[in-house]
Amino acid sequence: MARTIETEPLATAPAATVTGLMAEISAVGTDALRGGYTRPVYSTAELDLRAWFTEQAEKRGLAVETDRNGAIWAWWDIPGGDRSNSLVTGSHLDSVPGGGPFDGPLGVASALVAVDILKARMATPPRPLAVVVFPEEEGSRFGVACLGSRLLTGAIDPDKARNLRDPDGSTFADVARANGLDPRHVGKDEQLLGRIGAFVELHVEQGRGLIDLDQPVAIASSILGHGRWRLSVHGQGNHAGTTLMADRYDPMVSASRMVVAVRDIARKQPHARATVGRLQPVPGGTNVIASRVDFWLDVRHPNDAVTAALVESIHLQARVIAAEEGCRVELREESLSPTVHFDPGLQKDLQLALPDAPVLDTGAGHDAGVLAAHVPTAMVFVRNPSGVSHSPEEHVLDEDAETGAQTLADALHGLMA
Amino acid sequence: MARTIETEPLATAPAATVTGLMAEISAVGTDALRGGYTRPVYSTAELDLRAWFTEQAEKRGLAVETDRNGAIWAWWDIPGGDRSNSLVTGSHLDSVPGGGPFDGPLGVASALVAVDILKARMATPPRPLAVVVFPEEEGSRFGVACLGSRLLTGAIDPDKARNLRDPDGSTFADVARANGLDPRHVGKDEQLLGRIGAFVELHVEQGRGLIDLDQPVAIASSILGHGRWRLSVHGQGNHAGTTLMADRYDPMVSASRMVVAVRDIARKQPHARATVGRLQPVPGGTNVIASRVDFWLDVRHPNDAVTAALVESIHLQARVIAAEEGCRVELREESLSPTVHFDPGLQKDLQLALPDAPVLDTGAGHDAGVLAAHVPTAMVFVRNPSGVSHSPEEHVLDEDAETGAQTLADALHGLMA
Repeated sequence: MARTIETEPLATAPAATVTGLMAEISAVGTDALRGGYTRPVYSTAELDLRAWFTEQAEKRGLAVETDRNGAIWAWWDIPGGDRSNSLVTGSHLDSVPGGGPFDGPLGVASALVAVDILKARMATPPRPLAVVVFPEEEGSRFGVACLGSRLLTGAIDPDKARNLRDPDGSTFADVARANGLDPRHVGKDEQLLGRIGAFVELHVEQGRGLIDLDQPVAIASSILGHGRWRLSVHGQGNHAGTTLMADRYDPMVSASRMVVAVRDIARKQPHARATVGRLQPVPGGTNVIASRVDFWLDVRHPNDAVTAALVESIHLQARVIAAEEGCRVELREESLSPTVHFDPGLQKDLQLALPDAPVLDTGAGHDAGVLAAHVPTAMVFVRNPSGVSHSPEEHVLDEDAETGAQTLADALHGLMA
Repeated sequence: MARTIETEPLATAPAATVTGLMAEISAVGTDALRGGYTRPVYSTAELDLRAWFTEQAEKRGLAVETDRNGAIWAWWDIPGGDRSNSLVTGSHLDSVPGGGPFDGPLGVASALVAVDILKARMATPPRPLAVVVFPEEEGSRFGVACLGSRLLTGAIDPDKARNLRDPDGSTFADVARANGLDPRHVGKDEQLLGRIGAFVELHVEQGRGLIDLDQPVAIASSILGHGRWRLSVHGQGNHAGTTLMADRYDPMVSASRMVVAVRDIARKQPHARATVGRLQPVPGGTNVIASRVDFWLDVRHPNDAVTAALVESIHLQARVIAAEEGCRVELREESLSPTVHFDPGLQKDLQLALPDAPVLDTGAGHDAGVLAAHVPTAMVFVRNPSGVSHSPEEHVLDEDAETGAQTLADALHGLMA
């Protein structure tokens, strides 16, 4: 992993491109085991990316500040420095385990290039502009997606956040402290939130919408409601060699039947997505019948009532399976986000600035979805020709990446009027 | 965890009991997360138990030596010190994750008490006697069960053993070196193996045989053939929110169907046991459709041809499921041990010494099973009233534990004639 990322001084360098910026960080946080990138929040990899962002922002003359929740803000101030009614753009730098290079960083790199484009058009902006990097968007370290924007907006209780634990058992409070934050002060930041007049996040598309429409960029209409639930199946731990098949209460068999049931239930419901991507048998020995299996359920649907009904249906079927297998199952909600409709006025403004861009919804959560409850928010998607996300196969064509940044610059320019 | 285990000097102490010895180590390696004990080989817990054993053996005047493979041998020598045609008893001190207190340590504690009983009967033994502690019987750290006895007997290639890795990525060679062994010298020890005239291992029973027969101890007839196979299911990693159910090639669903198939296939075959106790989705994120799922299969049957046919049948069914789900599956054998029939002559000797003990087979692997290919070997089982093994619920009644040690002493005494 590159600890030092060399960049050239702007004065003598050609105009930055998204492709060029992405190439600078292409060696950071590569994952030889899974392929792709593993950049959990506050890992060495993510800290390297933060340092790179700070350097890039300062090179552009932006004023860089880290807020109480660990988000980085790079300000292009108006004369006088008033930051009310600011335009904000940006995304995140953390990744899922074994993710692609674009999910998050594309939005950050495009924001930096959009600043370059706008700076070439105007010496000072008519409206303050900030580029933001949110921490723990993926929730892959502490289990809560969009943790940074949830803290900023008060969508998560600070005490709950402080006590979140990563897979090594470290609390968010400890990790935040180790990274220069005061964990006593994490939580809602009314003053900072009040400065945001509009938030526009550019993101790689995570589905096949733009492939099918043969377009490079789209404007977002909504984010599907989604939630995470943890199911724990309790059985009877025993020896794999000495316990007759008839004497078993094996939670691994029960959980496996439940995973299949999750898929079968979701398949019958149009527009539903239900996934089990994480499962842990306890104790997890090859020659041991598990005593417990924990697995995590991700369910999404445009209609929040349908999401709730799907989870209820899965829970019911899980209880039936557990009973049939002599096991017991518990279900606990870990997070739930209703469907978010982005600001119609802002969406219309973007459509005026980008008349060719189609309007698409998305099944993926974003910091923009969390902010949408508080400030006018919009998103721009850039085509992903693989249609694959949260995987090393995620991809963006060079020309689409530059089109994305140009589009973002045009959209922000339109919103400055 | 207790770093110092207090013991009283033998001179003033009452005769040791198995229950008393087990109580001395009851705080070592407890596992608050899983319950029970987690004592992987060369962990602090297992090293504490080794130190305790050494102290106990030296207190009894036994000559303690660690062999080139990390097994501890405590010798009660005959006058003159010839060690040919020795009687050997003992077991192991390592555990599965979240195992019970008796699996391994009961055989070691009973051997120490049996030495006390025999020492009360005779000043010097007519045949040399050793108490042995084998390392990594469970295979829970390096993945190969009975690693110590396999190395001693040459049943595993030393190079293969040196390159085994624990879950942290450390090789057996590194861990062996850190624990005072020379990894260049691990492997078959002809001289030591040649000294063993007979090996008798006492072990807690891991099934319900003695419960059903209402007897405290049994003599073993055979160990079921067993093996471990690793299955890797390859699918298409993707985003859990944006990928429609119809567009998925989810290896988690495939693997789950395979786990259920393993159970269903084993259920149809009398005396078969097939288990999946370990499963890992890759990358393992809640909001990520896995790209690969690895799981481990444990299959056992008294007839080795049936074991092979069962695995073939499971592999075939797994390929069918993978094809149906648009996935791909690989199966790799990690270990295979044929059914072991213990030495009929030694078994007859034990039956003469223990006329009331029933004769039972077992589905669990043991170091005695590995040694059986080289020296006359026998096992004594002590009743486990829970019938549960590799779990905190494993249990032995105090009176059965003492009966076990008495039985072991009588059996060894009979073999000294």
